[in-house]
Amino acid sequence: MSELDFASFLNNETEVKNTGLRVTVLGGGSFGTAMANTTVRNGCDTMIWIRDEATAKEINETHINKRYLPDFTLEKELKAVSDIEVAVRDRDIILVAIPSHSFREVLRQIQPYISSQAVVSLTKGIEADTFSFMSDIIQEELPEVPFGVLSGPNLAKEIVAGQPAGTVIASDSELVRNAVQHALHSALFRVFASDDVNGVELGGALKNIYAVAMGMAAAFGVGENTKSMILTRALAEMSRFAVELGANPLTFLGLSGVGDLFATCNSPLSRNYQVGYSLGKGKTLEQATTELGQTAEGINTIIQVRTRSEALGVYMPITCALYEIIFKGAPVNSIAFSMMKNGHRSDVEFILPHQQ
Amino acid sequence: MSELDFASFLNNETEVKNTGLRVTVLGGGSFGTAMANTTVRNGCDTMIWIRDEATAKEINETHINKRYLPDFTLEKELKAVSDIEVAVRDRDIILVAIPSHSFREVLRQIQPYISSQAVVSLTKGIEADTFSFMSDIIQEELPEVPFGVLSGPNLAKEIVAGQPAGTVIASDSELVRNAVQHALHSALFRVFASDDVNGVELGGALKNIYAVAMGMAAAFGVGENTKSMILTRALAEMSRFAVELGANPLTFLGLSGVGDLFATCNSPLSRNYQVGYSLGKGKTLEQATTELGQTAEGINTIIQVRTRSEALGVYMPITCALYEIIFKGAPVNSIAFSMMKNGHRSDVEFILPHQQ
Repeated sequence: MSELDFASFLNNETEVKNTGLRVTVLGGGSFGTAMANTTVRNGCDTMIWIRDEATAKEINETHINKRYLPDFTLEKELKAVSDIEVAVRDRDIILVAIPSHSFREVLRQIQPYISSQAVVSLTKGIEADTFSFMSDIIQEELPEVPFGVLSGPNLAKEIVAGQPAGTVIASDSELVRNAVQHALHSALFRVFASDDVNGVELGGALKNIYAVAMGMAAAFGVGENTKSMILTRALAEMSRFAVELGANPLTFLGLSGVGDLFATCNSPLSRNYQVGYSLGKGKTLEQATTELGQTAEGINTIIQVRTRSEALGVYMPITCALYEIIFKGAPVNSIAFSMMKNGHRSDVEFILPHQQ
Repeated sequence: MSELDFASFLNNETEVKNTGLRVTVLGGGSFGTAMANTTVRNGCDTMIWIRDEATAKEINETHINKRYLPDFTLEKELKAVSDIEVAVRDRDIILVAIPSHSFREVLRQIQPYISSQAVVSLTKGIEADTFSFMSDIIQEELPEVPFGVLSGPNLAKEIVAGQPAGTVIASDSELVRNAVQHALHSALFRVFASDDVNGVELGGALKNIYAVAMGMAAAFGVGENTKSMILTRALAEMSRFAVELGANPLTFLGLSGVGDLFATCNSPLSRNYQVGYSLGKGKTLEQATTELGQTAEGINTIIQVRTRSEALGVYMPITCALYEIIFKGAPVNSIAFSMMKNGHRSDVEFILPHQQ
């Protein structure tokens, strides 16, 4: 993938690290596996919990996660376990890389074994029905635990290929931030700190909406001016929504905000972008989903965020326009034009409020 | 360019406008011409000042700016003049679209004819030697005048092709902001307001530096994770520099900040990106410039901003690294790696300060 082998360059001068941290990653998807491998390289004593015993055994024998990262050999010291008590008891950091629909259930499973471990979510998304973010779920299920969330533009395949990447650890606890930086930070995977948990989490949860919008715009052959306007109006409504939930708008200047949004909107092969493109070409959601062979996550996010923004009274024109197009059959062009007819507005409303 | 004809769709329902505003654009380059044409469409009485009399005459006869926008027919009501007194006296708004190296000289020429006109810069850049921004020059040469700056991701060719675009008018004066919005705002060219003149101007002035960096990274075949990290670290150092000069970091969330940066970094055909690509492939600046056939503006900006950032004591690692590579012959990869080895940092330092 890279014409320059970043990883081998660095290996020549990497000092031997031994952080002494005991880290467990819950979940054996591509990102969880990549993070587990990164902590091993940083000298942590690392386990990865994988529910299926046969898969855990296979990883321990072959050092390959055949299903999610088939082309990559993991560090030999990475130990896969399927016993959740072994995975969680007496560890320092639990990194939770479990899909949002099972996130709560897994936290309930580990609750008996939690003493002073820090629990950090690696999962982006919103729990269906409850509109809970992963940090909400941690606080509800494990109320005493020190916690954090990790989010950023982090395609797992690029990380394991040795491409430089950055991410954000957000936590109110400086101890948690420092521990996660020690466990994960390296020259090739840089971990930046924030204390804005809500803001960092919202970037990762909302971005897929705007990948749908960008794909839709691409179907109309728009140029760079238009794409930039969509990107910044997306940031405007994301940060407006986030501020209502207690976040700092400046967080959206960082990796978890505009960084992740940029990566997502710049990935024409992503499902969200592709479903937007098909919708822009006049197809129905059903047709677009059939062509794609699976559901795009952004569609569910649109439904959830529209409902929540209406309840909160937050103006989110892009999200609402996408909802009208997808679920009410509104024509794309007339919706786009009606949005463009909005009157004089402020560029960044946290500096200069909109005129009434 | 567009598969959907935005302009003709809107023409069907455009109300007749007559703002009564008397607008003059100084300078007949592509962006100045596009803006002059936009104000005519908005019902302004508009002149465009072009120094060369023959060119002005040709535009009045053919309604085409042959040199800069040869494929586009201008509104017939747009009047080109080459007498600067006629162009400036008794007008409401003077939009200055003159290259940065002649900007001051033209303001000196118009000074005798200025009474209560608002003067608005359309020019992005920094005056050589003085490190003055266009708003500095306006305040120095026309100290009494109400003024503003316009900046955003605004490729002139896309604007005249009827592609939707947005821009920012920044001024301390609400009257100036409102007048410029009336003169220029439409469904296809949306003008957002800000009162952060320094911040808006700096986005347009600094962005070219990072297009060089992005082109250089592309030469190494980096993926989306790395590009996103470069984009957000660019925003971090741009906003750090801007805050030192009195700007609000939140401005960089808007069109003139990340919007323009996104458009610039996403334009692989731009001179700045291409010179960066050649440098990344191991060529010298001389070789890269020869291949390109002209100088990339970002190179001069790197020299200016590095000098200024050292004087101000502002940490700008990307700008300084580019300087080392281009002018000191430092190898790209070792510079990149030394940057990546920086320790634990904050994601957005205006929220959480860096640890010492």
